[in-house]
Amino acid sequence: MEGHREVTGFEVAIVVPKKREKERDDTADCVEFLVRELKRAGLIVERVYGISDEFIKLAAPIEILGRVAAELQMKKLTYIGIELQFEWDEVSAFVRQPDGSLFSWCERFRCFQHLIYGIVNKTDSDMTLMFDGKEFQFQRNESLLKMMETEGVVKQVFPTHDEVKRKQLLRTWALNWLDFTWQPIDEIYAYFGTKIATYFAFLSMYTRWLFFPAALGLALQLVDIGPLQPLVLPAFFIFVVTWAVFFFQFWKRKNSALLARWGINYTLSEYKAVQIAQSSFSHVHDKCEKRFGDEPIEKKILQRDEWLGLLLRIRNNAIIVLAIICLQLPFELAYAHLYEVTESDVLKYALTAAYLLAIQYYTRIGGKVSVILIKYEKDQGEESSAASLVYKVFGLYFMQSYIGLFYHALSHRNLLTLRQVLIQRLVVSQACCSLHIFLVLENMIENSIPYLKYSYKKYKAFHKKKHEKGSAKMVHLVTRVEKEYLKPSYTASIGEELEDGLFDDFLELALQFGMIMMFACAFPLVFCFATLNNVTEIRADALKLLVMLRRPIPRAAATIGAWLNIFQFLIIMAICTNCVLLICLYDQEGKWRIEPGLAAILIIEHALLLIKFGFSHFVPEEPAWVRANRMRTVAQARDVFSKQLLRSISSIERNHH
Amino acid sequence: MEGHREVTGFEVAIVVPKKREKERDDTADCVEFLVRELKRAGLIVERVYGISDEFIKLAAPIEILGRVAAELQMKKLTYIGIELQFEWDEVSAFVRQPDGSLFSWCERFRCFQHLIYGIVNKTDSDMTLMFDGKEFQFQRNESLLKMMETEGVVKQVFPTHDEVKRKQLLRTWALNWLDFTWQPIDEIYAYFGTKIATYFAFLSMYTRWLFFPAALGLALQLVDIGPLQPLVLPAFFIFVVTWAVFFFQFWKRKNSALLARWGINYTLSEYKAVQIAQSSFSHVHDKCEKRFGDEPIEKKILQRDEWLGLLLRIRNNAIIVLAIICLQLPFELAYAHLYEVTESDVLKYALTAAYLLAIQYYTRIGGKVSVILIKYEKDQGEESSAASLVYKVFGLYFMQSYIGLFYHALSHRNLLTLRQVLIQRLVVSQACCSLHIFLVLENMIENSIPYLKYSYKKYKAFHKKKHEKGSAKMVHLVTRVEKEYLKPSYTASIGEELEDGLFDDFLELALQFGMIMMFACAFPLVFCFATLNNVTEIRADALKLLVMLRRPIPRAAATIGAWLNIFQFLIIMAICTNCVLLICLYDQEGKWRIEPGLAAILIIEHALLLIKFGFSHFVPEEPAWVRANRMRTVAQARDVFSKQLLRSISSIERNHH
Repeated sequence: MEGHREVTGFEVAIVVPKKREKERDDTADCVEFLVRELKRAGLIVERVYGISDEFIKLAAPIEILGRVAAELQMKKLTYIGIELQFEWDEVSAFVRQPDGSLFSWCERFRCFQHLIYGIVNKTDSDMTLMFDGKEFQFQRNESLLKMMETEGVVKQVFPTHDEVKRKQLLRTWALNWLDFTWQPIDEIYAYFGTKIATYFAFLSMYTRWLFFPAALGLALQLVDIGPLQPLVLPAFFIFVVTWAVFFFQFWKRKNSALLARWGINYTLSEYKAVQIAQSSFSHVHDKCEKRFGDEPIEKKILQRDEWLGLLLRIRNNAIIVLAIICLQLPFELAYAHLYEVTESDVLKYALTAAYLLAIQYYTRIGGKVSVILIKYEKDQGEESSAASLVYKVFGLYFMQSYIGLFYHALSHRNLLTLRQVLIQRLVVSQACCSLHIFLVLENMIENSIPYLKYSYKKYKAFHKKKHEKGSAKMVHLVTRVEKEYLKPSYTASIGEELEDGLFDDFLELALQFGMIMMFACAFPLVFCFATLNNVTEIRADALKLLVMLRRPIPRAAATIGAWLNIFQFLIIMAICTNCVLLICLYDQEGKWRIEPGLAAILIIEHALLLIKFGFSHFVPEEPAWVRANRMRTVAQARDVFSKQLLRSISSIERNHH
Repeated sequence: MEGHREVTGFEVAIVVPKKREKERDDTADCVEFLVRELKRAGLIVERVYGISDEFIKLAAPIEILGRVAAELQMKKLTYIGIELQFEWDEVSAFVRQPDGSLFSWCERFRCFQHLIYGIVNKTDSDMTLMFDGKEFQFQRNESLLKMMETEGVVKQVFPTHDEVKRKQLLRTWALNWLDFTWQPIDEIYAYFGTKIATYFAFLSMYTRWLFFPAALGLALQLVDIGPLQPLVLPAFFIFVVTWAVFFFQFWKRKNSALLARWGINYTLSEYKAVQIAQSSFSHVHDKCEKRFGDEPIEKKILQRDEWLGLLLRIRNNAIIVLAIICLQLPFELAYAHLYEVTESDVLKYALTAAYLLAIQYYTRIGGKVSVILIKYEKDQGEESSAASLVYKVFGLYFMQSYIGLFYHALSHRNLLTLRQVLIQRLVVSQACCSLHIFLVLENMIENSIPYLKYSYKKYKAFHKKKHEKGSAKMVHLVTRVEKEYLKPSYTASIGEELEDGLFDDFLELALQFGMIMMFACAFPLVFCFATLNNVTEIRADALKLLVMLRRPIPRAAATIGAWLNIFQFLIIMAICTNCVLLICLYDQEGKWRIEPGLAAILIIEHALLLIKFGFSHFVPEEPAWVRANRMRTVAQARDVFSKQLLRSISSIERNHH
């Protein structure tokens, strides 16, 4: 088995301060002790001295990770299509990654973490460790790294970039300007894990699909079809809604295909159910095992817990909804109204500044309150809590982003202002994006000039004497890992523990989607802006991840989760708002009698709602070829193993009785 | 293991005509040959001579059925929570039924069928068999029973009632008049299989829930709350829709609990997906195995098949929808209009008679066309075809049942006529039901009078001489199995091969539900009628199954399938129609200005639609205790078996390479 000799790259780094003085006694120094323990655990350690900190870079032979995974009782997919606890001795029973490695990046990182936090004081007595003259008590069965973190000796543990793969991705992906929407999903998956790969798969598919309504919107803007002109907007509206419904159904199919590609042997809906079930199960399991063996009592308690949890969730949602309606709505309306009424430009700017400041605080407080509320909803596990947070925070942003637009659209019936506001917002967002890319590129060029100089020097030095090259490389390495440490990490602006930076990216995407969908009738050209925006966004996000930020901590989610529901909700909202817009539009222009027009629009609305909810019955979420593949591998494997499995099950079952 | 000595009752009977003359040579007689072969296959045979036919009743030791199940490669749930092919030698690995038996009735019947149709000519040459002087060629590898069926010697193969269990069910269930809505679901499941048990579970839960709106409807009819009276109907409407939404979500939970009780280790949505996947998989499997080993080509072909199937389905649905709109709608409207216009009573009766006759033919033709169309949708497997048929035929009946009511409700805005029609329909249905029960009971009493006479005679005979008792019992047995043969079977009025009698029962239920929901605002009292109707219906259906009909062929479906979607659709329809009714009602009475009222009703409508589609996100389909149980058993078992399983998987995997 060639796999046994596999070694991971240096993927995790521990940051400790540089020692000011050379310790006399190395054995009591806690950093030296940590390094010794890490080496004893089987890790490959490389120590790098930066300007003010020391970096302990870690790699591991695959066998060490495998033993940790077995210790963690990690569940992994086997060839018979069910997930079983990992065992190093039976490694050939487990399905490998598409690129041939045994563990995905997410699993590797989990193992690393478990391994380094699992170094405990196994001796019978407390130990005394030193650092820079300070003494620490290392108590029995205490985690060494936790102790050092609380004492401030270990500043951080973070995943590091793999320079070779990063450069390769930069070349083939972020700086690949030829095909705008193509993404090397497999490589992104291998390097960043499922969650980020799913985001980019979604973003690229969304951008590609956006070309259709963008082209139609542009055509509508340019061409006048004469007597049928009043029918153009309703037709565009119907087209856009159908487009959105199709898009999300096909996204689900794409996501199913991705799951299959990443060795997750579930359908989309099963995957969701399993995520929730697993996290809540462990909780329930602990609770019940301790107290009861009696089924009816257990059932009663579980039922009570379920309904209490539901009530709690309803209460929390009610709090958020009330806060949004009673606090945010009047505030937003007041701003929109004042902005409209104010005539002096100076006052307008002052107003906007005050508004932006207030809204900043408001969203931050809202986010904090949401996180606190969610902590009470304890029964649900991480995945479901994250979804809950997403809904709540999206509620805040939804109000904030659209209420002004609604105000323009509905109470003033002023289409021109609405259009102006729409353009303004999209242009600002586009400008942000472009500026972002520009800054990143500038940053890269600035960085590469000294690198080029250095390369030139190295080239010359190489021809002079050999030992200089070694030390030069050392200096280069130091700067790289330290630079990475100084980069910001990929965190959400809200609730760091539950979500990563993808939250902000998805939020931006959802708000944009809502804007273009809900006001599609007001301004069809808006789709062009959105397309342009997204093409830029893809590159900006790729550069952000590869150049600007530290390597993000991998997360296991392999769907877009709660955001899918939010997008679906926005489609429904779009159906309603566009109908209202159409009514206002025609009502104002006085081109028809109200009654038949109203009836027609109501019929269109109901037909579209029917399409929205009926379409998913027609096109299944899982493509037939994915299903066939999944079923075949499982069925074949099970048929082969069937007898052996049965023998072992029945023998154990016999022993039980 | 006590299970090895289990024997089933006499559950299947084969009907052959009585021989007119005693055959000289018994070895060539095909009935004798059949009986010998059946005995050789291990079955227990009892031959009963009726008046004109002979009945071969079959029972089987469980071991024989087990071997057949293994031959059938039947999948059964094992203790590790996955389904594996049944193997008789490893019987202890498989989960048993709640009542302790190894196979459910559905599985037993499948085994019986496979066994008796699996008797083939295994000799090297054709055989010549005789019956009543006629000679038949029994070719090599031909199924004996199929040959005899085509030659008309075997008239029928049907499942027979188990007299002990039937009597018990009759006593505890059908004739248990004390608790109207309680059903012994477990016994019904054991005797009739999952599909019928699901129907009765649904019916009883529906009836219980109906008491709430019935009580409220009655209260509304009796109490006048003065100035708030105009708000009563909208309030009732909101209540009824919320009630329906709650009911169906809780029905899903109940169904999940039932699945768990019946040893089906899936959630509701997984179960649905698995049903479709399994049936379509076998088709795809056959197709692909033969022709390709190449994945990309296979994927292409699967994709093409999927989209062709989809287009075919859309075309078929379009045909049905067009047929309904272009043929049925004008016809129904013409009838409704003519009925309204006609003044003479005689003409009205003639019109109704002509209409009923025409509609009979129309539905029959519609059903036939649907069945033909569905046969073209070949890729889908039986479960999905049945669902497709249900949708199509329901479309026909929907038009037929409601278009007259809509006509009254909308074009005439005549609430009184509408109410009359509603009452009329429900009373007719109620009368049918009651008449049905009455006839069954009369039938039973008529039957039991001779039985009582006979018992008395037997009692007297018992005291006279012993041998008379034996022959008397013989006569009694003859009459019973022959009577059963003469009873009608439980078939649908439409498409016998795809659906059984439950189709008609569900259709009746769905039409009633649609009627009470869609016209809830027109006449709240209608819920009382429906409740009364359903209480009667439960008893009528139970008596029908136990007394009037042959034992139905068991079917595997364990959910209400397509009907759930139809009920959901009816709720949405109800939201829309009630809004239109309310608008008409208030518009006619002139109590408000149209604009704010219209806006209010539209807002109510959208809020209710939101509740309808949002509620399922709040209350999960699977109760927490069911999930916990399911997860725990699986997790425990897997943890226990984990190592052994892994060893066998990896050893086979190693041998593969």
